[in-house]
Amino acid sequence: MRALMLDAGALRLCERDKPSAAAECVVRVLAAGICGTDLELVRGYAGFSGVPGHEFAGVVEDAPPRDAAWIGRRVAGDITVGCGTCEGCRAAGRGHCDRRTVLGIIGRDGAFAEYLSLPASNLHAIPDGVEEMAAVLVEPLAAACRVLEQVHVTPRTRAAVVGPGRLGLLVALVLRGAGAEVTIVGRGEPRLALARAQGFETVTHTQTAAFARRFDLVVDATGHTDGLALANTLVRPRGTIVLKSTFHGETRVAFSPIVVDEITLVGSRCGPFDTAIDLLASGRVDARPLVDAVYPLEEFERAFAEAAAGRKVVLRP
Amino acid sequence: MRALMLDAGALRLCERDKPSAAAECVVRVLAAGICGTDLELVRGYAGFSGVPGHEFAGVVEDAPPRDAAWIGRRVAGDITVGCGTCEGCRAAGRGHCDRRTVLGIIGRDGAFAEYLSLPASNLHAIPDGVEEMAAVLVEPLAAACRVLEQVHVTPRTRAAVVGPGRLGLLVALVLRGAGAEVTIVGRGEPRLALARAQGFETVTHTQTAAFARRFDLVVDATGHTDGLALANTLVRPRGTIVLKSTFHGETRVAFSPIVVDEITLVGSRCGPFDTAIDLLASGRVDARPLVDAVYPLEEFERAFAEAAAGRKVVLRP
Repeated sequence: MRALMLDAGALRLCERDKPSAAAECVVRVLAAGICGTDLELVRGYAGFSGVPGHEFAGVVEDAPPRDAAWIGRRVAGDITVGCGTCEGCRAAGRGHCDRRTVLGIIGRDGAFAEYLSLPASNLHAIPDGVEEMAAVLVEPLAAACRVLEQVHVTPRTRAAVVGPGRLGLLVALVLRGAGAEVTIVGRGEPRLALARAQGFETVTHTQTAAFARRFDLVVDATGHTDGLALANTLVRPRGTIVLKSTFHGETRVAFSPIVVDEITLVGSRCGPFDTAIDLLASGRVDARPLVDAVYPLEEFERAFAEAAAGRKVVLRP
Repeated sequence: MRALMLDAGALRLCERDKPSAAAECVVRVLAAGICGTDLELVRGYAGFSGVPGHEFAGVVEDAPPRDAAWIGRRVAGDITVGCGTCEGCRAAGRGHCDRRTVLGIIGRDGAFAEYLSLPASNLHAIPDGVEEMAAVLVEPLAAACRVLEQVHVTPRTRAAVVGPGRLGLLVALVLRGAGAEVTIVGRGEPRLALARAQGFETVTHTQTAAFARRFDLVVDATGHTDGLALANTLVRPRGTIVLKSTFHGETRVAFSPIVVDEITLVGSRCGPFDTAIDLLASGRVDARPLVDAVYPLEEFERAFAEAAAGRKVVLRP
């Protein structure tokens, strides 16, 4: 099968063996989104070599006999595979397994290929009413929904989302769906225009002084080291900052203001797929406007360049 | 009156005017503890000039007519004075006032003097049964109690306190009082011996590898930039780190592990004085063994040197 390989910081198209259905379901990839984490992987984050890609919609083409009922179904998939028995699994669930593999990120080939494999227990059926370009956003929408599991959001919550990328917009949609008043902060157009088109108030990052210490909840979805510093200026005393950005390297932070202002920082990763699918199927979240471009796998160089420029790009293997 | 002045990073004993009882209560200071924050103030934290000192026990000697009932009473005092009307006060209480003064830390002379003044609303009466060397620890014990307001602690909570200074030991006593199983991590004797004398399991910081990702809750009370890194290695996935250290300067932190492991960091400052006084009065916390030495104000140089070496030192003006 054709697959996009990441090796020593370089991407190349190559031929790989199709995965086996001996132990896991084999999924034909219909569409796979390029995410900020994929861009960070190319820069060296997580030291990954293999096929990247973890946001996908696909069709189960083959499966072990016990999972045969999945064959032919359209699916999205939880990206983390845990052992279920280690200390990390017991303390915090399979997503935090000490020996976990993660689709296209840790020890497991991902979705930028014609096929991938995952255990049936990781799969979630996509209802017919959900279009492919929405289904491919189930994984990041689930990650956005994770915020509601971690922070108590009410109609009195004044929330800011820093970073109007695709994850940031999904978080904003989810927070608004929970009743919060949401402002989106970014570096400028065209991303902020997209946010306004979705009905959000927007602020450019050079004009945030008037919003200092204004927000109960600030979500950093910038994917950059400077997102936290901006979030720190926006959050009110005793407020909460949710950290959604994973990036390579360290950040310099003055922690005393966080202690003095009693800020809570919440690391936030993957979320509930069923909730995300339900939001899409019921129409409460319309994720389709968030995809900017679709390219065949062969045009990966152009696709990654556009993604690095801030567009949301989907590959079709 | 005699007072210890901090100016341009240097401490000196001098004569100052006694505070007035026109608007606030005048408290004769019986005893005042040297805290890690005081050591940081001398290093430049918060840019403070004036009389430092914020942990005290005293007797109200004079008061405005409306507060005359306080005269003669033994007191401890909330250190933050807020306006009650600004955005910070409305969002998070007077402790987070945008224009606050803080005893011996921000814009208000503190307790390393014969007298200090505070509004009556900041004062808390100390019952007769609480000795002076316990009463002087009400402020840090209240700060320790703050953790229980921020984090849900149960008898199933495996907690570690990093930094066996006086605040760390008070936090450990409070967590144990709430049912948690508490381990204290430090750089070595004699502080760890004091922790063991209080019945805690102790671990030296070079032997923490066996405890990696073991604790549900880790409290950083080191007062140093490296406390957070150690706390990060000890906390389990989806666990909580409470930040109690205020120090001058920045720390380099890799945030991706905090996001990936979904760690929550909670900044924690001042706490409920009434709870602290009740713990001391009822004997549930015995803070007296935590004071290592008592010196008159004139011996401040020796007192600060011993405090910098890790001992808990109290000044008697």
